[in-house]
Amino acid sequence: MLKGFTVPRTPRGAAALAPSPPWHFAGDVLAVEFWNDADAAADFLPSGIELHASRAGRSVALFVDCQFTAQGDEHLDPARYQCREFIVLLDALWQGSEIAWCPYAFADNDAVLAVGWIQGYPRKIGVVRQTRTFAAAGAASAVLVDGARLAASLSAHGQLLAQGRVTLRRKADHLVGLLDRPIVARRYFPRLCAGLHHKPAVDEIVRCKMDDLLTTNVWIGDGDLVFPEAHGEELEMLGPVKVGRGFRFSFSCAISDTEVLADLAAQDSR
Amino acid sequence: MLKGFTVPRTPRGAAALAPSPPWHFAGDVLAVEFWNDADAAADFLPSGIELHASRAGRSVALFVDCQFTAQGDEHLDPARYQCREFIVLLDALWQGSEIAWCPYAFADNDAVLAVGWIQGYPRKIGVVRQTRTFAAAGAASAVLVDGARLAASLSAHGQLLAQGRVTLRRKADHLVGLLDRPIVARRYFPRLCAGLHHKPAVDEIVRCKMDDLLTTNVWIGDGDLVFPEAHGEELEMLGPVKVGRGFRFSFSCAISDTEVLADLAAQDSR
Amino acid sequence: MLKGFTVPRTPRGAAALAPSPPWHFAGDVLAVEFWNDADAAADFLPSGIELHASRAGRSVALFVDCQFTAQGDEHLDPARYQCREFIVLLDALWQGSEIAWCPYAFADNDAVLAVGWIQGYPRKIGVVRQTRTFAAAGAASAVLVDGARLAASLSAHGQLLAQGRVTLRRKADHLVGLLDRPIVARRYFPRLCAGLHHKPAVDEIVRCKMDDLLTTNVWIGDGDLVFPEAHGEELEMLGPVKVGRGFRFSFSCAISDTEVLADLAAQDSR
Amino acid sequence: MLKGFTVPRTPRGAAALAPSPPWHFAGDVLAVEFWNDADAAADFLPSGIELHASRAGRSVALFVDCQFTAQGDEHLDPARYQCREFIVLLDALWQGSEIAWCPYAFADNDAVLAVGWIQGYPRKIGVVRQTRTFAAAGAASAVLVDGARLAASLSAHGQLLAQGRVTLRRKADHLVGLLDRPIVARRYFPRLCAGLHHKPAVDEIVRCKMDDLLTTNVWIGDGDLVFPEAHGEELEMLGPVKVGRGFRFSFSCAISDTEVLADLAAQDSR
Repeated sequence: MLKGFTVPRTPRGAAALAPSPPWHFAGDVLAVEFWNDADAAADFLPSGIELHASRAGRSVALFVDCQFTAQGDEHLDPARYQCREFIVLLDALWQGSEIAWCPYAFADNDAVLAVGWIQGYPRKIGVVRQTRTFAAAGAASAVLVDGARLAASLSAHGQLLAQGRVTLRRKADHLVGLLDRPIVARRYFPRLCAGLHHKPAVDEIVRCKMDDLLTTNVWIGDGDLVFPEAHGEELEMLGPVKVGRGFRFSFSCAISDTEVLADLAAQDSR
Repeated sequence: MLKGFTVPRTPRGAAALAPSPPWHFAGDVLAVEFWNDADAAADFLPSGIELHASRAGRSVALFVDCQFTAQGDEHLDPARYQCREFIVLLDALWQGSEIAWCPYAFADNDAVLAVGWIQGYPRKIGVVRQTRTFAAAGAASAVLVDGARLAASLSAHGQLLAQGRVTLRRKADHLVGLLDRPIVARRYFPRLCAGLHHKPAVDEIVRCKMDDLLTTNVWIGDGDLVFPEAHGEELEMLGPVKVGRGFRFSFSCAISDTEVLADLAAQDSR
Repeated sequence: MLKGFTVPRTPRGAAALAPSPPWHFAGDVLAVEFWNDADAAADFLPSGIELHASRAGRSVALFVDCQFTAQGDEHLDPARYQCREFIVLLDALWQGSEIAWCPYAFADNDAVLAVGWIQGYPRKIGVVRQTRTFAAAGAASAVLVDGARLAASLSAHGQLLAQGRVTLRRKADHLVGLLDRPIVARRYFPRLCAGLHHKPAVDEIVRCKMDDLLTTNVWIGDGDLVFPEAHGEELEMLGPVKVGRGFRFSFSCAISDTEVLADLAAQDSR
Repeated sequence: MLKGFTVPRTPRGAAALAPSPPWHFAGDVLAVEFWNDADAAADFLPSGIELHASRAGRSVALFVDCQFTAQGDEHLDPARYQCREFIVLLDALWQGSEIAWCPYAFADNDAVLAVGWIQGYPRKIGVVRQTRTFAAAGAASAVLVDGARLAASLSAHGQLLAQGRVTLRRKADHLVGLLDRPIVARRYFPRLCAGLHHKPAVDEIVRCKMDDLLTTNVWIGDGDLVFPEAHGEELEMLGPVKVGRGFRFSFSCAISDTEVLADLAAQDSR
């Protein structure tokens, strides 16, 4: 009897790329609000998702530095259970409801790459870095105060793909206008049988559920963001035409569920 | 209209983790034949696959150093289109036919990780190294001659998982007793909906097809192999109780198809 | 006129591997106190340094997760100015004075490797990981409380070299018995001229100065530590025969000076 | 009695970052000849080295994929003894003699970083990739024939720093106009004592000797090369204003000696 939530399925289930959910995450986030070209952004939406007219092109880029665990104290294996992620979310509508659509995402850890695919995040492997803050004050500590500056970057295969900066202005009780709408993504697993390459085995529009989302240490300020052009990537098409606020906060959440909004593979096979 | 064989699906399809098949591979392989404990090996087989009684526990570990391309001269982007892989194949039977079953695999590249999942190989990210041979003779060249020694290793998350050595004895026209049976693996994509974590969206026993397989520069000799114990892995359960021949060869092949032998998800849902 | 504190020396001095000192560091440390075999430890001491008889074999292993900057807001380039380090310090005596001798060290960043060599730390490149703590509580946050557990590891070239664990027991005002003696190391730069390979160009016993050392958030508890045997390393010879307290703290400091205690190269050439 | 050619100096000498010379190297090289702005190139020369008037700005960029060993079959430890390097060489004159001056270099291995510093190469850690050729023909093999294309890239800290391409035109018996003059570099090891930061402990102009240099499988063709602008680097100042031939060849050599042409530290202290 083989065990494991993901491959490889093994006798004890200890080798699976990702342990069984629920997965608990905790981390620090640097986020920049921006507006991209609405026509370009619309080109990234699958049928059924539309831009939110009054907020067309409004997006956020998140650089995340985090740790995760399942039920086995996995965070005591830091070589395997830490990850850094980058994600873009576009304000959009699904059947008239406000959502945040995820067209592009990276992570630096194979377990989290797999977890992302299973949730619907279109992750690739990338290197994500973020200025850190430490408890002992000093020139290198990046203490969180008014005027403090923090930076983040994303690279993949040796190319710089995104660079963000935030100048902190004020501590806030809550994130305002960030992560306030359900995240919608696309679970997609191709088929390799000859003649069926265009018929994915899994193609679902899903709502990515997060339980017990806690945000704290919220700082809001000014953002800066660039998506340099890069060979083999299309992130620059989503690049900022205007940049808004910057955010820095800590978060924790649990993940164990997803809601299928539409089964595109089933529709297609009808 | 979004394009791309894998996620992310984008307007131009240039950002997909893996380009559309056929995928062409070429590389150098160091392989070691071995026998593991038959009871342990049997524990790694899904229902429907059985050990081959007369060859129970006979296996091979392959360390592969390769380059790949699709239809766009991708190999001219060497930062992205080179990979190193490790794979274990167990001699087994599917409905009485001889097959090689793949219980464990690693690669160092996210595109090839995705390609592996799509084919059915249970890949995780690992670091695979292999002694190389160069055209200019010298102490560091590892020229392929009788008595030459070559080594390979696999690590993941900072732990050594496999170490192989081959001492070359004779050049051969063909691989004998290696890669001479169809490779069978398991395409597996989990479901995250609450209550359905044990019901994968995709669970198929498949035959991994390889077109135009060419092997050349074949050398056969003596092998050596160890799978050190490692936290969070079960590879050591497949470790050698006896080691046989070692091989070193170059190969090329194309991949664009897979044959579904059994749809376990459909059987399960009946 | 070429500029730069280290190579490469360039017209603007912006490309130097390490910027000009002072260098400011800030980070989090997981430390484990241990005793190794006194005879083995003595074998790691250069002439002039002796074990501290009453504390023979008393040592500490530090796993450090940190950020650094010089005078140019370098910490806003997080891809380059973050590092993780591992260091062993042995209690010893220099001319009757208590010191901590550094026989073995790793870092994951080339700038810090260079900085280490210049200070006298015998750094190699390694991968150092440490369980992190985050402001938002949750199963993955590793909140610092009595009973909390944190772990750390060191790997190099795919081999696990050290693994530490700390169970927190009480918050403390100060580090007691840790980093309370001057660190002494050996600046060493070889000569490659034929016949002079045994005559290093630089060979100095030095005191590594740290300015403005600040430690805070100090927790003390129980430690655990292993140095697994590894090919091409000798760290296991310094491995624990007894393990003592564990520590977790944050620190900051500045570095811009070193004191030469003895010039072994000059003595040798006399 | 501590042993080891470099730090760390240990009882057995097995842990030294680099083993004792001679070091044997073997590998494949992709090289592109180019001309940079002569004024910019002159700014990279230390006093005593001058541009070669009739060849002002003539340079070569080499991308090297190689393996090394000392006297202990180190190449059987492929995780540690393989490296990829990038180097720029400028045609110049030392006291009227033709030399190739090395202003900028990268490698992906800490042992080779140290070896480079000891020889005088101003190496930093970078990721260097090169299209490979394999014995088994196929779309991914990059077989060496007239018209074949090969590419290479250099990145560091997630920024693309150099990209080269070569289209092969003809097999040649010898490298013509490449590696035909002695390489001259600068051994440089800083001093950290307060007040002496500008007085390096070692500052020598040296000739980097290579014994038994063998080049084979030489192909000559057309080159292409760019050095994109990058934060914290000055390589782009040496960027091509004109690109010449491209080369692809295999090499081996041994290194155990360096000749000191001038001791700048001693001159300075007089």
